[in-house]
Amino acid sequence: MNFEDDLIMIPGPVPVTPRILKAMSKPMINHRGTEFSNLYSEILEKLSKILKTKNDVFVLSGSGTCAMEAAIGNVIDDCDSIVTVVNGKFGDRFKLIGKRYGKTIPVEFDWGTSIGLEEVESALKGGAKAVTMVHNETSTGILNPAKEVCELAKKYDALFILDCITSIGGIDVPIDDLGVDIAITGSQKCLGAPPGLSIISVSEKAFEAISGKVPFYMDLRAYKKSSKKGQTPYTPAISLFFALDESLRIIEEEGMDNRILRHEKFAKAMRAAINALGLEMFPKLNTASRYSDTVTAVNMPDGITDKQLKDGMRSHGIIIAGGQAHLGGKIFRISTMGNITGGDLLRTISALENVLSENKVIDKSGSGAETANEILNI
Amino acid sequence: MNFEDDLIMIPGPVPVTPRILKAMSKPMINHRGTEFSNLYSEILEKLSKILKTKNDVFVLSGSGTCAMEAAIGNVIDDCDSIVTVVNGKFGDRFKLIGKRYGKTIPVEFDWGTSIGLEEVESALKGGAKAVTMVHNETSTGILNPAKEVCELAKKYDALFILDCITSIGGIDVPIDDLGVDIAITGSQKCLGAPPGLSIISVSEKAFEAISGKVPFYMDLRAYKKSSKKGQTPYTPAISLFFALDESLRIIEEEGMDNRILRHEKFAKAMRAAINALGLEMFPKLNTASRYSDTVTAVNMPDGITDKQLKDGMRSHGIIIAGGQAHLGGKIFRISTMGNITGGDLLRTISALENVLSENKVIDKSGSGAETANEILNI
Repeated sequence: MNFEDDLIMIPGPVPVTPRILKAMSKPMINHRGTEFSNLYSEILEKLSKILKTKNDVFVLSGSGTCAMEAAIGNVIDDCDSIVTVVNGKFGDRFKLIGKRYGKTIPVEFDWGTSIGLEEVESALKGGAKAVTMVHNETSTGILNPAKEVCELAKKYDALFILDCITSIGGIDVPIDDLGVDIAITGSQKCLGAPPGLSIISVSEKAFEAISGKVPFYMDLRAYKKSSKKGQTPYTPAISLFFALDESLRIIEEEGMDNRILRHEKFAKAMRAAINALGLEMFPKLNTASRYSDTVTAVNMPDGITDKQLKDGMRSHGIIIAGGQAHLGGKIFRISTMGNITGGDLLRTISALENVLSENKVIDKSGSGAETANEILNI
Repeated sequence: MNFEDDLIMIPGPVPVTPRILKAMSKPMINHRGTEFSNLYSEILEKLSKILKTKNDVFVLSGSGTCAMEAAIGNVIDDCDSIVTVVNGKFGDRFKLIGKRYGKTIPVEFDWGTSIGLEEVESALKGGAKAVTMVHNETSTGILNPAKEVCELAKKYDALFILDCITSIGGIDVPIDDLGVDIAITGSQKCLGAPPGLSIISVSEKAFEAISGKVPFYMDLRAYKKSSKKGQTPYTPAISLFFALDESLRIIEEEGMDNRILRHEKFAKAMRAAINALGLEMFPKLNTASRYSDTVTAVNMPDGITDKQLKDGMRSHGIIIAGGQAHLGGKIFRISTMGNITGGDLLRTISALENVLSENKVIDKSGSGAETANEILNI
């Protein structure tokens, strides 16, 4: 008998705290009334602080992919070139979207390896209107070098589009300091809200670059016009705005700096446990990249299949993620994003030890949780 | 002191019953696990019954406009012609979206007047890949002739795209009998769920017509591929799926036929009250159109402004809608969509009488609610 709900430790959607679930279930309001415009304005103000930006910020009623497409679809037209940096599934998604709008110049690296700045610069030399990169590549557990690639983009006068879907809210992403033209994130990752909303920040330079046939639902000019009245151009997913607002209140209460430190500590504890269990991290790092502080990707050890591991974890009430696309069966991934607790983390690591032990992948339990707890000190 | 929540009688979002709010606040689940795929499959099965269709049905995480764009964006490419029938704001939106994808041939009528079938046929004679029409034009309170325009579309071998956002769930829309190629609806209208999801049904013929550069987030081929596994191609707004599922259960319990009769009766009661109060319906009907059975649009009477009326209603705890675009100040609109009760309707009519009476637009209160109650018989 398990008295607890299943704990979802996948890299989004993340567990949603009861406080947020409760806020979400408020009665419906008019999306064209003052109650909504006050709510939306407050949400935008809180998001601007988290993103450390003076750029326009909007909330789209659509998941992260909707915002990824909004970023490209607004500024890239048939004749425009776009450099897409790819070292994982979401980098690849930018490439696929890019192909629908303009001339895509992919700069590709093996998934799980770091990106090479020289290759990016070499692609930019040919001229491009924009560069896309995924900041935190969820599919591989790598944090890509935002600062360095942004500098390259500026050097060649290209717009810098950064997917921060699994970094913002857990990792510091100072949009204006970095000089990101279009940054996007999602509600259901480090911000800790349910899925269904995405957030986009847009620089003046990016606004001036809007051209061609922009998707109607994602037209950033319409969002800009409506946000002046505290509205969205089309009916917003009001309940999810209630939830996002509550999740931003929680972030304010925790303090963004504390939240970043907590994400660092949790990921460090997770990596230490992985190491203590004799498992191997999946990413191959170079000087330009780091392990993600929001999701940990681990090589699947010998002696256990993806299904055995996930089913075993599930029997302990924990949901973890496998590898995506060609990484299926080769890695597993555990998220430490959002409003999870040290207890959630220890529960996850303990379950992992037990499952590995039950399958005779490791000799005995205990060392992983012990090592993590030394770092967590909860 | 008002113990009740504000009652939103605008044509969407509609009030969401506590049962649905509660279902929505369930803990988060993995969108790639069996729990979600079971949920999604059940939702699609229930929707297929309501739409009376064997066509593919998908749920998009995005509002109605997202589905409107999905309909056009998939099948219309630069060189394609699309006839857009316009007699209100949402017909106009189809025209605006059409312009971003192909050669748009608008067939326009004054907002609030009926569409002329001859004009539609005359436009179709020039050849078109598709025709768009809004079934229930929320901006004006008119139900447009789906059957007749669908027959014209077939006669000229054009796909028929029907916006049923404010009809499905309240008015009978037998998709296969009518022969609608692409039908769309939204969660927050007659279905009674919160906003943020839209639903699209797609015929085989429409699938075969997909061509050109389709928006990535709205690519119906991706939805089709994923739905075979009970999934959506991109992260779904899970909480809203919980809510939609509960709203579909409520519809099943009420019975779709009963629900349609209730919508008919409520709209009839509302129109009778409007008439009894000496007010004038906004739509100018011809033989090819009907008053909407989900939203009632009324000419703004002399002696009261839009602001006075809406503020007055608000002081009674009722939110109603004004006119959109150039109809602002000229009409007001009251919705009778979704899971509202006869009591909600009487409360609204009584408040309307009081506000009109307070502003000396009518002499005395009573006749509207009395007349409506004779029809409602609650």
